[in-house]
Amino acid sequence: MNTLAIWHDIVRQRDTARFNEVLAEDCVFLSPIVHTPQQGRDLTVLYLTAALNVFNDSFEYVKEVVTAQHAVLEFTCEVDGILVNGVDIMTFDEAGKITEFKVMVRPLKAVNLLHAKMKAMLESMSAQ
Amino acid sequence: MNTLAIWHDIVRQRDTARFNEVLAEDCVFLSPIVHTPQQGRDLTVLYLTAALNVFNDSFEYVKEVVTAQHAVLEFTCEVDGILVNGVDIMTFDEAGKITEFKVMVRPLKAVNLLHAKMKAMLESMSAQ
Repeated sequence: MNTLAIWHDIVRQRDTARFNEVLAEDCVFLSPIVHTPQQGRDLTVLYLTAALNVFNDSFEYVKEVVTAQHAVLEFTCEVDGILVNGVDIMTFDEAGKITEFKVMVRPLKAVNLLHAKMKAMLESMSAQ
Repeated sequence: MNTLAIWHDIVRQRDTARFNEVLAEDCVFLSPIVHTPQQGRDLTVLYLTAALNVFNDSFEYVKEVVTAQHAVLEFTCEVDGILVNGVDIMTFDEAGKITEFKVMVRPLKAVNLLHAKMKAMLESMSAQ
Protein backbone atom coordinates (compact mmCIF):
# COMPACT_ATOMS: atom_id res chain seq x y z
CA MET A 1 0.00 0.00 0.00
CA ASN A 2 1.34 3.39 -1.01
CA THR A 3 0.40 5.12 2.24
CA LEU A 4 2.46 2.64 4.26
CA ALA A 5 5.46 2.99 1.95
CA ILE A 6 5.34 6.78 2.34
CA TRP A 7 4.83 6.38 6.10
CA HIS A 8 7.99 4.29 6.43
CA ASP A 9 9.92 6.89 4.37
CA ILE A 10 8.68 9.67 6.67
CA VAL A 11 9.73 7.80 9.81
CA ARG A 12 13.09 6.70 8.39
CA GLN A 13 13.97 10.17 7.14
CA ARG A 14 12.22 11.99 10.03
CA ASP A 15 10.56 14.05 7.31
CA THR A 16 7.70 15.56 9.31
CA ALA A 17 6.84 17.94 6.44
CA ARG A 18 5.38 14.97 4.57
CA PHE A 19 2.79 13.86 7.18
CA ASN A 20 0.13 15.71 5.15
CA GLU A 21 0.66 13.29 2.26
CA VAL A 22 -0.74 10.35 4.23
CA LEU A 23 -3.26 11.96 6.61
CA ALA A 24 -6.87 12.71 5.67
CA GLU A 25 -8.00 16.24 6.46
CA ASP A 26 -10.38 15.06 9.19
CA CYS A 27 -7.82 12.68 10.71
CA VAL A 28 -8.15 11.99 14.43
CA PHE A 29 -5.23 11.18 16.75
CA LEU A 30 -5.75 8.98 19.82
CA SER A 31 -2.86 9.02 22.27
CA PRO A 32 -1.72 6.29 24.65
CA ILE A 33 -2.08 8.75 27.54
CA VAL A 34 -5.44 10.57 27.35
CA HIS A 35 -8.89 9.40 26.35
CA THR A 36 -9.97 12.53 24.42
CA PRO A 37 -9.31 12.36 20.66
CA GLN A 38 -7.21 15.12 19.04
CA GLN A 39 -9.38 16.25 16.11
CA GLY A 40 -8.08 17.21 12.67
CA ARG A 41 -4.94 16.91 10.57
CA ASP A 42 -3.09 19.84 12.19
CA LEU A 43 -3.35 18.40 15.72
CA THR A 44 -2.49 14.92 14.42
CA VAL A 45 0.65 16.31 12.75
CA LEU A 46 1.57 18.12 15.98
CA TYR A 47 1.37 14.91 18.04
CA LEU A 48 3.13 12.74 15.44
CA THR A 49 5.93 15.31 15.14
CA ALA A 50 6.35 15.42 18.91
CA ALA A 51 6.44 11.62 19.03
CA LEU A 52 9.08 11.44 16.30
CA ASN A 53 11.15 13.96 18.30
CA VAL A 54 10.83 11.89 21.48
CA PHE A 55 11.87 8.61 19.83
CA ASN A 56 15.54 8.10 18.97
CA ASP A 57 17.46 6.01 16.42
CA SER A 58 16.69 2.79 18.30
CA PHE A 59 13.07 3.06 17.05
CA GLU A 60 12.13 0.18 14.79
CA TYR A 61 9.01 -1.55 13.56
CA VAL A 62 8.96 -5.25 14.50
CA LYS A 63 5.54 -6.45 13.26
CA GLU A 64 3.05 -5.42 10.57
CA VAL A 65 -0.54 -6.63 10.41
CA VAL A 66 -2.19 -5.03 7.41
CA THR A 67 -5.56 -5.25 5.69
CA ALA A 68 -7.23 -2.87 3.21
CA GLN A 69 -8.93 -0.93 6.00
CA HIS A 70 -6.35 -1.06 8.82
CA ALA A 71 -2.67 -1.34 9.57
CA VAL A 72 -1.20 -2.25 12.93
CA LEU A 73 2.52 -1.54 13.11
CA GLU A 74 4.23 -2.74 16.28
CA PHE A 75 7.40 -0.92 17.33
CA THR A 76 10.12 -1.00 19.94
CA CYS A 77 12.36 1.83 21.12
CA GLU A 78 14.69 2.32 24.07
CA VAL A 79 14.28 5.75 25.66
CA ASP A 80 16.31 6.72 28.75
CA GLY A 81 17.08 3.05 29.36
CA ILE A 82 13.40 2.04 29.29
CA LEU A 83 12.09 -0.34 26.62
CA VAL A 84 9.00 1.08 24.93
CA ASN A 85 6.83 -1.45 23.06
CA GLY A 86 3.88 -0.02 21.20
CA VAL A 87 1.52 -0.14 18.26
CA ASP A 88 0.48 2.42 15.66
CA ILE A 89 -3.09 1.51 14.67
CA MET A 90 -4.08 3.22 11.42
CA THR A 91 -7.52 3.29 9.82
CA PHE A 92 -7.67 4.12 6.11
CA ASP A 93 -10.40 5.80 4.09
CA GLU A 94 -11.31 4.64 0.59
CA ALA A 95 -8.50 6.72 -0.94
CA GLY A 96 -6.01 5.00 1.37
CA LYS A 97 -5.46 8.10 3.54
CA ILE A 98 -5.26 7.76 7.32
CA THR A 99 -8.48 8.87 9.05
CA GLU A 100 -7.59 7.62 12.52
CA PHE A 101 -4.17 7.20 14.11
CA LYS A 102 -4.19 5.47 17.49
CA VAL A 103 -1.19 4.63 19.64
CA MET A 104 -0.91 2.22 22.57
CA VAL A 105 2.27 1.37 24.49
CA ARG A 106 3.44 -1.06 27.16
CA PRO A 107 4.66 -1.67 29.79
CA LEU A 108 3.36 0.79 32.43
CA LYS A 109 6.87 2.21 32.93
CA ALA A 110 6.96 3.15 29.23
CA VAL A 111 3.50 4.78 29.36
CA ASN A 112 4.63 6.96 32.28
CA LEU A 113 7.90 7.83 30.52
CA LEU A 114 6.12 8.85 27.30
CA HIS A 115 3.61 10.86 29.32
CA ALA A 116 6.43 13.01 30.76
CA LYS A 117 8.46 13.16 27.53
CA MET A 118 5.51 14.06 25.26
CA LYS A 119 4.32 16.77 27.66
CA ALA A 120 7.78 18.38 27.75
CA MET A 121 8.19 18.07 23.95
CA LEU A 122 4.78 19.62 23.17
CA GLU A 123 5.56 22.50 25.56
CA SER A 124 8.96 23.16 24.01
CA MET A 125 7.45 23.02 20.50
CA SER A 126 4.68 25.51 21.37
CA ALA A 127 7.26 27.86 22.92
CA GLN A 128 9.14 28.16 19.63
CA MET B 1 -9.73 -18.99 11.18
CA ASN B 2 -10.77 -21.72 13.60
CA THR B 3 -8.63 -20.43 16.48
CA LEU B 4 -10.32 -17.02 16.34
CA ALA B 5 -13.80 -18.57 16.20
CA ILE B 6 -13.00 -20.66 19.30
CA TRP B 7 -11.45 -17.59 20.96
CA HIS B 8 -14.63 -15.58 20.50
CA ASP B 9 -16.70 -18.49 21.90
CA ILE B 10 -14.43 -18.65 24.97
CA VAL B 11 -14.74 -14.91 25.64
CA ARG B 12 -18.50 -14.82 24.97
CA GLN B 13 -19.19 -17.81 27.21
CA ARG B 14 -16.41 -17.00 29.73
CA ASP B 15 -15.37 -20.61 29.26
CA THR B 16 -11.84 -20.45 30.68
CA ALA B 17 -11.53 -24.25 30.62
CA ARG B 18 -11.16 -24.05 26.84
CA PHE B 19 -8.11 -21.74 26.70
CA ASN B 20 -5.94 -24.84 26.16
CA GLU B 21 -7.66 -25.47 22.82
CA VAL B 22 -6.19 -22.33 21.27
CA LEU B 23 -2.86 -21.88 23.10
CA ALA B 24 0.36 -23.58 22.05
CA GLU B 25 2.22 -25.35 24.86
CA ASP B 26 5.10 -22.87 24.80
CA CYS B 27 2.79 -19.85 24.59
CA VAL B 28 4.11 -16.60 26.07
CA PHE B 29 1.95 -13.90 27.65
CA LEU B 30 3.02 -10.24 27.55
CA SER B 31 1.04 -7.97 29.83
CA PRO B 32 0.28 -4.27 29.43
CA ILE B 33 1.87 -3.64 32.86
CA VAL B 34 5.22 -5.40 33.13
CA HIS B 35 8.01 -5.95 30.62
CA THR B 36 8.91 -9.53 31.63
CA PRO B 37 7.13 -12.22 29.56
CA GLN B 38 5.09 -14.89 31.38
CA GLN B 39 6.42 -18.16 29.92
CA GLY B 40 4.30 -21.20 29.11
CA ARG B 41 0.67 -22.17 28.62
CA ASP B 42 -0.15 -22.48 32.36
CA LEU B 43 0.93 -18.93 33.17
CA THR B 44 -0.78 -17.62 30.02
CA VAL B 45 -4.05 -19.31 31.08
CA LEU B 46 -3.68 -17.81 34.57
CA TYR B 47 -3.34 -14.26 33.23
CA LEU B 48 -6.10 -14.65 30.62
CA THR B 49 -8.46 -16.08 33.26
CA ALA B 50 -7.69 -13.18 35.61
CA ALA B 51 -8.30 -10.70 32.78
CA LEU B 52 -11.64 -12.31 31.90
CA ASN B 53 -12.62 -12.04 35.59
CA VAL B 54 -11.67 -8.34 35.69
CA PHE B 55 -13.62 -7.42 32.56
CA ASN B 56 -17.42 -7.23 32.78
CA ASP B 57 -20.29 -7.59 30.31
CA SER B 58 -19.50 -4.25 28.66
CA PHE B 59 -16.42 -5.90 27.09
CA GLU B 60 -16.62 -5.97 23.30
CA TYR B 61 -14.31 -6.31 20.34
CA VAL B 62 -14.52 -3.29 18.01
CA LYS B 63 -11.86 -3.99 15.38
CA GLU B 64 -10.16 -7.07 13.91
CA VAL B 65 -7.01 -6.95 11.82
CA VAL B 66 -6.12 -10.49 10.85
CA THR B 67 -3.49 -12.18 8.69
CA ALA B 68 -2.31 -15.81 8.60
CA GLN B 69 0.41 -15.12 11.18
CA HIS B 70 -1.19 -12.51 13.43
CA ALA B 71 -4.48 -11.21 14.75
CA VAL B 72 -4.98 -7.84 16.39
CA LEU B 73 -8.33 -7.61 18.16
CA GLU B 74 -9.16 -4.18 19.55
CA PHE B 75 -11.57 -4.04 22.48
CA THR B 76 -13.35 -1.59 24.73
CA CYS B 77 -14.70 -2.11 28.22
CA GLU B 78 -15.94 0.18 30.97
CA VAL B 79 -14.58 -0.81 34.38
CA ASP B 80 -15.42 1.26 37.49
CA GLY B 81 -16.51 4.13 35.24
CA ILE B 82 -13.20 4.18 33.33
CA LEU B 83 -13.13 3.42 29.61
CA VAL B 84 -10.51 0.79 28.80
CA ASN B 85 -9.40 0.61 25.15
CA GLY B 86 -6.96 -2.14 24.31
CA VAL B 87 -5.62 -4.69 21.85
CA ASP B 88 -5.05 -8.43 22.03
CA ILE B 89 -2.12 -9.14 19.70
CA MET B 90 -1.92 -12.86 18.88
CA THR B 91 0.85 -14.62 17.00
CA PHE B 92 0.01 -18.01 15.48
CA ASP B 93 2.22 -21.02 14.80
CA GLU B 94 1.85 -23.12 11.65
CA ALA B 95 -0.93 -25.16 13.22
CA GLY B 96 -2.85 -21.96 13.97
CA LYS B 97 -2.25 -22.14 17.73
CA ILE B 98 -1.38 -19.00 19.68
CA THR B 99 2.34 -18.83 20.53
CA GLU B 100 2.36 -15.25 21.81
CA PHE B 101 -0.44 -13.27 23.41
CA LYS B 102 0.35 -9.60 24.00
CA VAL B 103 -1.97 -6.99 25.47
CA MET B 104 -1.70 -3.20 25.38
CA VAL B 105 -4.23 -0.72 26.76
CA ARG B 106 -4.90 3.01 26.77
CA PRO B 107 -5.34 5.60 28.14
CA LEU B 108 -2.98 5.90 31.15
CA LYS B 109 -5.92 5.92 33.57
CA ALA B 110 -6.99 2.50 32.22
CA VAL B 111 -3.46 1.07 32.51
CA ASN B 112 -3.32 2.12 36.17
CA LEU B 113 -6.80 0.70 36.82
CA LEU B 114 -5.94 -2.67 35.25
CA HIS B 115 -2.67 -2.74 37.17
CA ALA B 116 -4.56 -2.56 40.48
CA LYS B 117 -7.43 -4.84 39.38
CA MET B 118 -5.20 -7.58 37.90
CA LYS B 119 -2.96 -7.60 40.98
CA ALA B 120 -5.95 -8.02 43.30
CA MET B 121 -7.52 -10.68 41.05
CA LEU B 122 -4.31 -12.76 40.79
CA GLU B 123 -3.90 -12.59 44.56
CA SER B 124 -7.48 -13.70 45.22
CA MET B 125 -7.12 -16.54 42.66
CA SER B 126 -3.90 -17.83 44.25
CA ALA B 127 -5.51 -17.70 47.70
CA GLN B 128 -8.22 -20.15 46.64
